[in-house]
Amino acid sequence: MKKVTVAAIQMSCTKNVQENIDKADAMVRKAADAGAQIILLPELFERQYFCQERQYEYYDFAKSIEENDAVRHFKKLAKELSVVLPVSFYEKDGNVLYNSVAVIDADGTILGVYRKTHIPDDHFYQEKFYFTPGDTGFKVWETKYGTIGVGICWDQWFPETARAMAIQGAEILFYPTAIGSEPIIQTDSMPHWRRCMQGHSGSNLMPVVAANRIGLEEVKPCEENGGQESSLNFYGSSFMTDETGAIVEEASRDKEEVLIHTYDLDEIKTNRLAWGIFRDRRPECYSIISKK
Amino acid sequence: MKKVTVAAIQMSCTKNVQENIDKADAMVRKAADAGAQIILLPELFERQYFCQERQYEYYDFAKSIEENDAVRHFKKLAKELSVVLPVSFYEKDGNVLYNSVAVIDADGTILGVYRKTHIPDDHFYQEKFYFTPGDTGFKVWETKYGTIGVGICWDQWFPETARAMAIQGAEILFYPTAIGSEPIIQTDSMPHWRRCMQGHSGSNLMPVVAANRIGLEEVKPCEENGGQESSLNFYGSSFMTDETGAIVEEASRDKEEVLIHTYDLDEIKTNRLAWGIFRDRRPECYSIISKK
Repeated sequence: MKKVTVAAIQMSCTKNVQENIDKADAMVRKAADAGAQIILLPELFERQYFCQERQYEYYDFAKSIEENDAVRHFKKLAKELSVVLPVSFYEKDGNVLYNSVAVIDADGTILGVYRKTHIPDDHFYQEKFYFTPGDTGFKVWETKYGTIGVGICWDQWFPETARAMAIQGAEILFYPTAIGSEPIIQTDSMPHWRRCMQGHSGSNLMPVVAANRIGLEEVKPCEENGGQESSLNFYGSSFMTDETGAIVEEASRDKEEVLIHTYDLDEIKTNRLAWGIFRDRRPECYSIISKK
Repeated sequence: MKKVTVAAIQMSCTKNVQENIDKADAMVRKAADAGAQIILLPELFERQYFCQERQYEYYDFAKSIEENDAVRHFKKLAKELSVVLPVSFYEKDGNVLYNSVAVIDADGTILGVYRKTHIPDDHFYQEKFYFTPGDTGFKVWETKYGTIGVGICWDQWFPETARAMAIQGAEILFYPTAIGSEPIIQTDSMPHWRRCMQGHSGSNLMPVVAANRIGLEEVKPCEENGGQESSLNFYGSSFMTDETGAIVEEASRDKEEVLIHTYDLDEIKTNRLAWGIFRDRRPECYSIISKK
């Protein structure tokens, strides 16, 4: 048996970075107190989801991994609590800005950075304005408690993300997220969002963990944003699956919550092998998928 | 609006080929009477699922596309009813045997053949004994009523199958299937099976249609099968999704049924484009998926 206890944190975010870090700190401690060893925070939890509007000055939010407040803070906490923390942050590398995750191991060392591969662009999810598509490729991380893959939000809609991490040996897939209402197309994407990831989980025979934010975030019209007035209602609904894609833990749409679940990675590996999916893949037939 | 009405047929199969063809004929007529234009029959419906046991003489079941009884029969029926029929059959091509589908257009012409890419192998699903992995690659077919992709059973567990057909312009994905109990690992794979395909549907923003068989099929021990005694209980549960992976029609586990649903392919295409998945793919990052 190789048991690991995993947590997903669902929280709202204010406009104050320190407030958000303090809240995340408290929720990570709560998860660790309950036995969690790998703890997932939502995407870009240091701030409200600034991509709702276009403002040049928000480029200043991006910092190098050494200078980012959340990474600096949670390196220390990871070591103190002996927990693994994938920390989402807005990364500046020279003149290029990315939507990134620093994967912090249980001794506080940074195992490395993954940069979001797929960048969305819709009326109030204007990420192509802020983020260059990631150049790291999909990665997995051998942490103290297991080999994990981390994708970031929009990545979670792409079967390629999950498969690439699974092929590299991931045992659990993590997705920090910021997703909510669709004011223009007026659809509730929540069940669709879950089904895609449940599918990745079932097709790759491994758990998926998604942590989303909650709360209404409003944009007031101003000269800098071109007079945009809008709001997004982030729908929470964070969840965890077993290796068949069944939801084993799930959060509400509107409350701050810590989800916790214990997996037996050896049992899951046995099921994964018994099911034969990776034995029966035909990479020579998949060239259309990677065709440029 | 580009409306198309689709049917999935769920049936049990006997050991008598003509009986199964007659039953399938009656159910196709029933679906067509109800307005169906593309009608999916289950995998290898001409016989009981012979792959439950290994018998050399069963190789004789394989016939060329010109000689196969079901293909010959349903070519005529497709023309008579003006319906599209993907027909699953055991194909002999020279000395090589495949698990294939002949896609018959509404005028009775055969648009071509797809040969199952992924071949399973488990205690009582011994397909590697009977079928060479397909050499056609994934294909889509421009039928009278829309562009369709067809995968076969085990293919439905692989996100690569669905994605490859979606990239080529599929509007609906079809999966003829024969799946049921797992006597050794004793798991009910039905919800897992559905979730994988619901994931493909949601991730590719297109409907998925799966037709499975029902019924208990028993194998008696004999010298030819090495003394195997076993049974498989095929669990039906055929279903159809919308383009978000939500199930819109579903069958029972144990009754013969015809599922029927009407889709608006133009509306689905609009939603697919609005969602931006195919815009934001990064094929240059997917080489690990097609790496030999």
